[in-house]
Amino acid sequence: MITLTTDFGLRDPYVAEMKGAILTINPKAMLIDITHNVEKFNIRMGSFMLASAAPYFPKGTTHLIIVDPGVGTERRGIVVQTKRGFFVGPDNGVLMLAAQSQGIESIYELSNPNLMFPQTSNTFHGRDIFAPAAAYIDRGTQPRDFGSEIKDPVLPHFSVVEQIRGVLNGEILYIDDFGNVIFNIKEKIMPNSPVISIKLPQVSLKLKFCKTYGEATTGEPIVLVGSHGFVELALNQGSAAEKFNLKVGDKIAIMVD
Amino acid sequence: MITLTTDFGLRDPYVAEMKGAILTINPKAMLIDITHNVEKFNIRMGSFMLASAAPYFPKGTTHLIIVDPGVGTERRGIVVQTKRGFFVGPDNGVLMLAAQSQGIESIYELSNPNLMFPQTSNTFHGRDIFAPAAAYIDRGTQPRDFGSEIKDPVLPHFSVVEQIRGVLNGEILYIDDFGNVIFNIKEKIMPNSPVISIKLPQVSLKLKFCKTYGEATTGEPIVLVGSHGFVELALNQGSAAEKFNLKVGDKIAIMVD
Amino acid sequence: MITLTTDFGLRDPYVAEMKGAILTINPKAMLIDITHNVEKFNIRMGSFMLASAAPYFPKGTTHLIIVDPGVGTERRGIVVQTKRGFFVGPDNGVLMLAAQSQGIESIYELSNPNLMFPQTSNTFHGRDIFAPAAAYIDRGTQPRDFGSEIKDPVLPHFSVVEQIRGVLNGEILYIDDFGNVIFNIKEKIMPNSPVISIKLPQVSLKLKFCKTYGEATTGEPIVLVGSHGFVELALNQGSAAEKFNLKVGDKIAIMVD
Repeated sequence: MITLTTDFGLRDPYVAEMKGAILTINPKAMLIDITHNVEKFNIRMGSFMLASAAPYFPKGTTHLIIVDPGVGTERRGIVVQTKRGFFVGPDNGVLMLAAQSQGIESIYELSNPNLMFPQTSNTFHGRDIFAPAAAYIDRGTQPRDFGSEIKDPVLPHFSVVEQIRGVLNGEILYIDDFGNVIFNIKEKIMPNSPVISIKLPQVSLKLKFCKTYGEATTGEPIVLVGSHGFVELALNQGSAAEKFNLKVGDKIAIMVD
Repeated sequence: MITLTTDFGLRDPYVAEMKGAILTINPKAMLIDITHNVEKFNIRMGSFMLASAAPYFPKGTTHLIIVDPGVGTERRGIVVQTKRGFFVGPDNGVLMLAAQSQGIESIYELSNPNLMFPQTSNTFHGRDIFAPAAAYIDRGTQPRDFGSEIKDPVLPHFSVVEQIRGVLNGEILYIDDFGNVIFNIKEKIMPNSPVISIKLPQVSLKLKFCKTYGEATTGEPIVLVGSHGFVELALNQGSAAEKFNLKVGDKIAIMVD
Repeated sequence: MITLTTDFGLRDPYVAEMKGAILTINPKAMLIDITHNVEKFNIRMGSFMLASAAPYFPKGTTHLIIVDPGVGTERRGIVVQTKRGFFVGPDNGVLMLAAQSQGIESIYELSNPNLMFPQTSNTFHGRDIFAPAAAYIDRGTQPRDFGSEIKDPVLPHFSVVEQIRGVLNGEILYIDDFGNVIFNIKEKIMPNSPVISIKLPQVSLKLKFCKTYGEATTGEPIVLVGSHGFVELALNQGSAAEKFNLKVGDKIAIMVD
């Protein structure tokens, strides 16, 4: 089983070309799309997508991710073996959030031309290098057959939550299609309180800390822990992002006491 | 075979998480998307989508639908067995239009924790309860194994067409991506006439009642029965919805004589 | 294996109905979407999509394409056998660009009612005629079983590049989701020069002729040969179409000396 996560969108033929390349090498591969609607070149958003979805796939799954602003430069391609499966993509940090949470066992460079598309283009490594690599891995090729072992992979530089004098200083990691606003704050550092004081860029609010969207009346803003494990600001049956005029990267603060 | 219909969109990782959950339980499941672009929380639109597509799938197909404004409240989850297959989703009416047209045999509640995801979240029953249920049904688990039988399912409350003194009073059920405007009026109650008088919110028209889009000249508005069996207003190679400024829910009337 | 290319979009249930129709006839078919986001009725864009993606699929693949402004008129449906596989769709030229590049062996009309959906609708030949044809072909039915041989298929009328006194006069064939602007000019007629003079509708430019996007500094416009084999104008990590206000069909010129 191979999952695909890209910033290619679904209008262009690029995703199909990758699937064709995979199925030419490995006609029995089962292909599952995670998303192709990562914002162009947005490594953070791609990381979040893959890290959210990967835990729900069976052991042995190969995850292919391509968000690759550096295509055609010297950046490396890599295959990562973890305790639960494999990750294939550019060495720009985009797959490390998901891979690290599964426990990384080894990382190899994709440099063996025999495991690439014969006429490798300079502009579409997704189809010519990464898709074939995923197809071979899913068919049983060993990661070490792709090239040298890598000990210095590029790590993602996402913001870290700071806790200063009873205040958690975080930021907006992602806004989903429902308008739910997801912070880079994990459940375990949240205060154990039925009401949360939160500071947004344009307003400060005291909100109910709920277990589910259904605890709020229609249109009421609440705080809860989403299914992905991060704290989110939600509006029951409405868009919290729109109501409070929020965007990814905005700074927020939560009062711990 | 399992079909999926949701209002999750294709940008977020939620659909992929559901597919991962299904394939973890049932690695051989064949998954077919009906649509993930149901308008958020629009039970009527979800109903129409599923009811349009379900008749074309093989006998024995399991249809999973999640349009679920009540997630996290006391609303039940259900599995419905029909003469042709199975339906899994929230008990809010969204699956009943499609299920009823296949002939319902029995309905059971989804309450057996052994047939759910072990750490059920409060916010994502699609992944934690409904997707596993569909995976088990497709693998052969019996509906009665999920919980108690239900005799009072929630039924959808869609508007009924009224016929008063030679006038069919209906409304707009759906507007498709081509701009074709679909009414809640079935072919069998339509007058048998080559010309139809129709009253839209802003204008009254006399239009040809055609068998196919090709009978109209480019840009000409016509009335015909769509492939889904409902009467629609169409513009050959154009958007009827845009031309006449129409939206879902608008009242319309057709003169029967 | 069957690929699908349509202008149906992913919001409506139409693509799912086609897949259901295929799987009812041929439950083991592997279905791969090329794209369903061809602009409505845009035969040129559909042609480009299919011709770009088809070369990457395995030998024996059946390609189903439906961009069909003439549905319900007298236009024929066809199945084309090539040296590498099969193409099914309307006889309006949309599949010929891809089929011709594989080498056409024979073309047959789709007129055998036993190989169609029993209640063929007048408005949805995609589901009722073309999808069943693809399902039967993938299952081993011979093209000649569908109807009479056709010797006069409709050919696409795309603009031809004119070369006059050292100038290549072409036009914009496609703009992809990254904003890369693809011309109807193939690599082999391009000047062998590190710098290209190009005339756009609103401006003339001298640009680097690169091998990869990575050779440009961020935001720098360049010319290169895309992975599809056509010349394109690109902006490293930006939209060239937006920067130069370009749209499909715009005339462009490249100075050859």
